[in-house]
Parts: sequence; structure tokens; C-alpha cells
Amino acid sequence: MAKDLPKRSENYSEWYNQIVTKADLAEHSSVRGCMVIKPYGYAIWEKMQAALDKMFKDTGHVNAYFPLFVPKSFLEKEEGHAEGFAKECAVVTHYRLKVDPDHKGKLIVDKDAKLEEELIVRPTSEAIIWNTYKGWIQSYRDLPILINQWANIVRWEMRTRLFLRTTEFLWQEGHTAHATREEAVVETEKMLDVYADFAERFMALPVLKGVKTPNERFAGALETYCIEALMQDGKALQAGTSHFLGQNFAKAFDVKFSSKEGKLDYVWATSWGVSTRLMGALVMAHSDDEGLVLPPMLAPIQVVIIPIYKKEEELAMISEKVLQIKKELEAKGISVKFDNSDNRSPGWKFAEYEFKGVPVRIALGPRDMQNGTVEVVRRDTREKMVLQQTDLVNKVEHLLENIQSNLYQKAISFREQNTISVNTYDEFKQAIEKGGFVYAHWDGTPETEEKIKEETKATIRCIPMDAKNENGKCIFSGKPSERRVVFAQAY
Amino acid sequence: MAKDLPKRSENYSEWYNQIVTKADLAEHSSVRGCMVIKPYGYAIWEKMQAALDKMFKDTGHVNAYFPLFVPKSFLEKEEGHAEGFAKECAVVTHYRLKVDPDHKGKLIVDKDAKLEEELIVRPTSEAIIWNTYKGWIQSYRDLPILINQWANIVRWEMRTRLFLRTTEFLWQEGHTAHATREEAVVETEKMLDVYADFAERFMALPVLKGVKTPNERFAGALETYCIEALMQDGKALQAGTSHFLGQNFAKAFDVKFSSKEGKLDYVWATSWGVSTRLMGALVMAHSDDEGLVLPPMLAPIQVVIIPIYKKEEELAMISEKVLQIKKELEAKGISVKFDNSDNRSPGWKFAEYEFKGVPVRIALGPRDMQNGTVEVVRRDTREKMVLQQTDLVNKVEHLLENIQSNLYQKAISFREQNTISVNTYDEFKQAIEKGGFVYAHWDGTPETEEKIKEETKATIRCIPMDAKNENGKCIFSGKPSERRVVFAQAY
Repeated sequence: MAKDLPKRSENYSEWYNQIVTKADLAEHSSVRGCMVIKPYGYAIWEKMQAALDKMFKDTGHVNAYFPLFVPKSFLEKEEGHAEGFAKECAVVTHYRLKVDPDHKGKLIVDKDAKLEEELIVRPTSEAIIWNTYKGWIQSYRDLPILINQWANIVRWEMRTRLFLRTTEFLWQEGHTAHATREEAVVETEKMLDVYADFAERFMALPVLKGVKTPNERFAGALETYCIEALMQDGKALQAGTSHFLGQNFAKAFDVKFSSKEGKLDYVWATSWGVSTRLMGALVMAHSDDEGLVLPPMLAPIQVVIIPIYKKEEELAMISEKVLQIKKELEAKGISVKFDNSDNRSPGWKFAEYEFKGVPVRIALGPRDMQNGTVEVVRRDTREKMVLQQTDLVNKVEHLLENIQSNLYQKAISFREQNTISVNTYDEFKQAIEKGGFVYAHWDGTPETEEKIKEETKATIRCIPMDAKNENGKCIFSGKPSERRVVFAQAY
Repeated sequence: MAKDLPKRSENYSEWYNQIVTKADLAEHSSVRGCMVIKPYGYAIWEKMQAALDKMFKDTGHVNAYFPLFVPKSFLEKEEGHAEGFAKECAVVTHYRLKVDPDHKGKLIVDKDAKLEEELIVRPTSEAIIWNTYKGWIQSYRDLPILINQWANIVRWEMRTRLFLRTTEFLWQEGHTAHATREEAVVETEKMLDVYADFAERFMALPVLKGVKTPNERFAGALETYCIEALMQDGKALQAGTSHFLGQNFAKAFDVKFSSKEGKLDYVWATSWGVSTRLMGALVMAHSDDEGLVLPPMLAPIQVVIIPIYKKEEELAMISEKVLQIKKELEAKGISVKFDNSDNRSPGWKFAEYEFKGVPVRIALGPRDMQNGTVEVVRRDTREKMVLQQTDLVNKVEHLLENIQSNLYQKAISFREQNTISVNTYDEFKQAIEKGGFVYAHWDGTPETEEKIKEETKATIRCIPMDAKNENGKCIFSGKPSERRVVFAQAY
């Protein structure tokens, strides 16, 4: 097995941890709960950012930047919001260190530099942003405001896992302001669609779109929409959320506008975000027992070319050909690495790029040069092909498209095979034990939701947007229900 | 005067503040010393980022991300570094808030959630990064490491100004690790060249390249290289720095590597950065009494097109033509805004885009439609031209190039007119009073440097890279000197 990677079937959790570290995506830092995103991992995140940023701009949004710190009094203003985040806040209390008079070379907090009001390192930016919007909004002419921010976020987590749950993470957060409820709801749903589209087209990750139950809503929201994906261990992962905030933050920060008719009203709000958590979803969705598998649309290196040679003259000959192929591929926008390093064997390189999930590997040796061929291996199926050098660029281009759609289809099939509808609590418990998405009737009460969670660890992932009206009975309480919701154990 | 903007000659400082806020670049937030970068300002920063990021990647660097927090003990490890930053550190001491039992709806710091070791919000990342590099470097094969990070930084400032000096700012910081002193010095100088190239080509801002005196070095560096630009009020602005860190951080964090010959040695380091301070430099370098002036290479909107009409049919006819022109300009990679909003007059729009520094304004009315012409105004000289619609795209393209080089030439001329060599302290004081770069002999001692600073507020901006050997006498002490250094009052 590659790099002593455990099999998914044996220890999925450890398999994930090792892929993340051994494929050089990220590692734990010496700062509790914070990670270092390594260059290879960050390159994937940059590709995600670029694609999302374009989608945000194409839907009329602009970027801006708001302060890292939220004064404690701002956080208090929206009650639900305050309670939701209070327990996980990093608090800045002082603004200066000084040399410890008793220990040369040591620094201590300067007690004279205590802040009058504590500053919270942003756990999300609604408070600081709505405090700012107050100054920007007077009339309906100032609306809508369609702003996104790329930023770092801190939520103190007791149990952390690389990408999935870290004290500091990177994300984007959209914060929009609207004149009407309808417009804000349209925005909330539009951004959910953007996220779903991104997950499916770029990450090759099928997602369910739905709304959260009140229990699972964002602190301060009237409605939280989400996309939910299924990982290979049968657990669900929330991959993005879009919140309809109603007038809660406008009321908390007293943001009113005068309408066309001259009436004063509070502004309507949305917020929406995805984070480096998507990196975890990407790893878990497609990778296998041989290491990382990356969809071509997000792979920093899409094609790696490895020369097979014994003599320097052979390398020279091969290199000439490879550089030509590389140039042609790059002209098509395909990212190519020619690994001609001489301190590693071809076998070592094969294993390395396979582990790192490079979608297409091309090898080229003296015999290939004679025959006008190359050896091509696709990472997803590990299928080996011998291709003619003529028209190679088109073939590789199609192969990359094929890999992208194959990964998506595979993930769709996996989800279909791991989605079930159940009608009794016994069936439900069995299904949850097995893993996957479980469609079941629920009586709509937080109490039932809580009890099911206690007994089975399953949560309601969402009430699907496309749920059909269907009369049934709650699997737990037997009370009437009008549609099925989706349960799963989740990350 | 535009938007009641003070004249530069009357109140340069207030002129700057008002341009930044009234052109919607940034504003003060409610968080002490922190700014909100507004969408128009952030769009300029994004253009800077894109250009710099490409230059970093073209010179072999990759991006990564390291934690926001630096444990206090890490900061202590490099003594000079610790002393340099201790006084301006935001300190996280607790990780939780709780509801105030005495005041409903209020939050207080949870005393039970005190951190064992305080965390510093990064004032720069050498400490956290070198602690990480320790785990990455064993052999010369692991070197060089060429990493850049885009991040937010916090340095507690008592007196802040938008972009120029803020408690939180955005920047990039390169952190590289090398096997030899020579290689590290080459890297330090290479990145200084990248910064100079960026400033001159993109910002149209001529810069002096040089090294700092020991007094002005980065805390922990053996040598600090810098680029220095001259603002319109005759003050200098440090626009970027590149530090040769020697083995200081490798020693502090015990980072050794085995060389090809099997010898153990400490790793050599560099770090280099530019920040949102560049936004301040950009504003101050080119703008005039009518508002912001942006070089086309960094302007979010390069061309604005404004229709002049009375009847709806006229607008329809004009719009058709404009959309065609817009499409052709965009095909050339030129960013165009067609402002057909009906709630503002053309005159208002002219003033608005002039104030916001849009390089080229095109107006199109019914008479232009008859004559096959457009009215074009360039922002830098405010010159008005009537151009034929035929071949307009090429003309606009050349005009943008012309504006870019004109701004650079103007800044070069300004610098030449405001650069002087002096030989006596009287001449020196007069020249410093007048403003500009002052070349003078200095005896090389920190004491003299300090005294000159006390008496004249002038600091040594740099010892220029291209300084000629020239025997002379220190303007202050009369002691011998081998070359002139550059003095100025500075931001």
C-alpha cells in the first residue's frame, strides 16, 4: 500500500489524516487547533478560490475587507448570534507585551495595556459588517449591497481535524443587504445554487440542496440553506451554507432605509460561506487506498510527464519531445509538470504522483521514442494505455474531461447506492448504522430531532429543496408528517 | 473643487484623507485603528495582488498559509525580533466568553477559559514559519524553500492613517530558506528587484533601491533592503522591504540541514513584504486637486462610457453603439463601464468618475452619432479630444499606454526636481525643510543618524544600491564618509 496508508475499509479516519499529511496538503501547527496549509494543498485552495470568485463576480458581487476584530459589544447586539458564538471566541484583552523584569529574554503581558473593551477575533463577520453597513445605507438607492470577503476566521474548537474542523480556517463570507424580503430570499437561494454548481462542476461532488431545521440554523438566521455531500464512509458533510437573516441584524444595528415611497424600513440581509472545509470534502469524496484522487478541474498539476532512460543521450532525446508536448498541452490551458529530476527513480515518481492524485501520468522511454508512442495512466481508474504521440494533446484533453465526469458519476452512483427511504424506527436505526443518506418522516419538532440524535447520532442534514409532499408518520413519534427529511451521521 | 477636496498645496494631509474616503477606497472602522477596505479600493488591491502573485510565481515561489497566532514563547526566541515587536502586539488571553450573570444579554470573558500561554496575533510570521520549517528541513535536498503568504497582520499603532499606518493591514510575506549565504543574498536582492519592477511598471511609481542603516533594519535581520518612493508633498514613503535574515531564525528555532558533503549547518533565511500601504503610495503619488488619478494598469475601471441624451430613442441608438465599442474594448482586455443609469446627470457622472480616477472617459451624444465621433477625456492631463469612432479601440489602447507612461514620467520628473545633493548641515536643513530626497555624506554612526533625526525629523531612507564611492565629510560630524546616503522626512 502506498506510503503505508491504511485502507479505507480498515480505518477511514486514519486513512484521511494520513492522506492529508502525506500528500503534503496540510499539517498540524504548534498552535493548538491551527493548521499549516502546505503549498500543494494551498494550490488546490487557490483553484477553488479562483473558480468561486469568478462565480461571485459573475452574479454581481464585489469583494471588500472588514476588520479582523469584533468589539464584544457588537457581538452582543444580536442575541441568538451572541449565544451561538460566545463559547468559541478567541479574546484579545491586551495590546502590548513587555520584557519580563525577572527573566531576561522573556516577555510578559503588559498589565498597563489592558483594553477597555475586549476584542473578539472574528468567528464570522455579521456584527462588524452590519455595524459598517449602517453608515452606507440611507435610501433604497443604496441597495442592494452585494459584498463578499475572503478572510480567516477563528472559532475555538476543542477537537480539531485538518480542514474539517480547525480553530482557524480560511473562508469567504458573502454579506448582502436588500430592500425587500423577496429579494433577500432570492439571493440566499441563488448563492446556494452557486455553491451546488461549484461542488458539482469543479469538485465533481454531487450535493443535496435543502434547508436546515431550526435546531441546526446559523445563530441569527431565519432560514439556513445548505448543500450536503456524502463521504465514502457513509457520513454526510455540510459543504456550504447560505443564510436568510431577515431583518435581525438590521434591527440589532439599527440599519434602516427609506423606500421609493418614502417609508422607513429595516434592511433585509443574507450571508453565505464556504471554507477550507471543502478541502476535506474533496479528499474524502474521491481518494482511494492508493492516495489522493483529484478532479482535473482543481488539480494543481493535471498532467505529469516522467522520462524513462538510462543514458544521458536518451534523456536529451526524450526531453526534446516532452518539452514540445508540454508546450502544446499548456497552450490548451493544461498544467503540466515534467519531472526530470535525477535523484529519484521512475518507480518512485510513479508512486509519488499517484499518491498526490495527479489525474494523468505520461511516461516516455526510448522504445516509445522509436514507436512514436507514450504510456498514459489515468489516476481515477489506474488504467494504463499506450497512445500515439500524434494528436496526443486532444486525447489528453478529452481524457481529463473524462476523468472529471467519471469522478462525478462514481460519486453519484455511490450516493444512490447509499441513499434509502425508511418507514420505521427499526429500519431507520439499521440504515443509520450502515451509513448514507436516510430519507424518513419526522414530526417537525426539535424534541424528536434531539432524541433521535441522542439515540442514533444521526442529525437531520436538511429538508431537501425538491422534497415531495407525501403524507406519512414520523418514524420516532408516529405523528403525522408531510414530507421526508434527510438524516445521516455527519462530520 | 471636486467634492470640496482641499488643495494639495493647502492641506496635503487632509487632501489625502478625503480622497481615500470620498473616492470610496477605505474608511475608518469602529474598531480602533482598523480600516474597512471598500469595494473600489479592494478592487485596486486585487489588481496589485494579481500582478505581484504572478511575479512571485514566475520567480519560482509558491503560496502557503500559516497560523494567525504566534505563541508568546515563539516570539521570544529571536531576541531582536521579540524586542522589536513586543510593544505593538495584540494578545489573546482567553478562548471563551460567557453570558454575564448580572446583566442579561451581556457577555463577559470566561475566567475559566484562560490560555496557559498567551497567543499573539501575528505582527509578522518569521517565528511561526521558522518553527514550521524546522520540521520540513533535514537535508540540502529540502532546500531552497520559496514560500509566500497572503495574510492579515496586526501591529498595535497609536496613531493610524488609512492605508499608511493601520493596526490591521493586509500584506504578503515571502519566507525563504537556503543552503548558503550567497543564495539567500541573491534571493533578497531578487525580490527587491521584483518590488521595484512592480512599483515602476504597474504603479507608475519610480523608486530608489537601497539598504537600510542598522537603526532602521527589520527586527531580526542582518540587512534590510528597501524601495523608497517620493510623494507629492516631498516626503518619502517606504514601499517595500526585503530582509536578509542570515542564520538568526534558524539558530533561534534550531533549523539545521546536512549539506551535500554531510556537514550540519544552520539554514539561511530571507523575508520580504509589501502591504496595503502601497495603496496609500498609489493615491499620494499621482492624484491631483480634482481627486484620485489611477495608472491604467491598476484601475478597476479603465474606461467609462457615458451617454448624453434627452429622449429614450436617443439612448437606445447610443446604447447600441456603446455596447459594440464596449465589446471590442473588452476583447482587448480593457475593463469598461457603461454608466447608463438614469438618476444622475452626465455632469454628475463626469465629476464622479474624474474623482475616482478612471483613466479614460468617453461621452457619446446624438451629434456624435451623426458625426461618427466620440468625446474622449484623459484623466491625467484632463485633455479633451474628439475622436472618430473608426479604429477607436486601437486609439484607446494607445491612450491607456500613454497615460501609464505619462504618469511615470511625471513622477520621475517630480523626483528629479526634488532631489538634491548637499555638503553642509545648513544646506541640509534648508533642503529637508523644502522636502524631497537629500543626498548627503554621513559618518556611518547611529549616534549621528539619531541626532540629525532629532534636529530635522529627517531619517536616512537608504544607502542607495547604486551609490558611487566618493570621499566626503559627514554633514553633521565632519568625519570622513565614503558615499552619500539619502535623507528625507518620511511617512
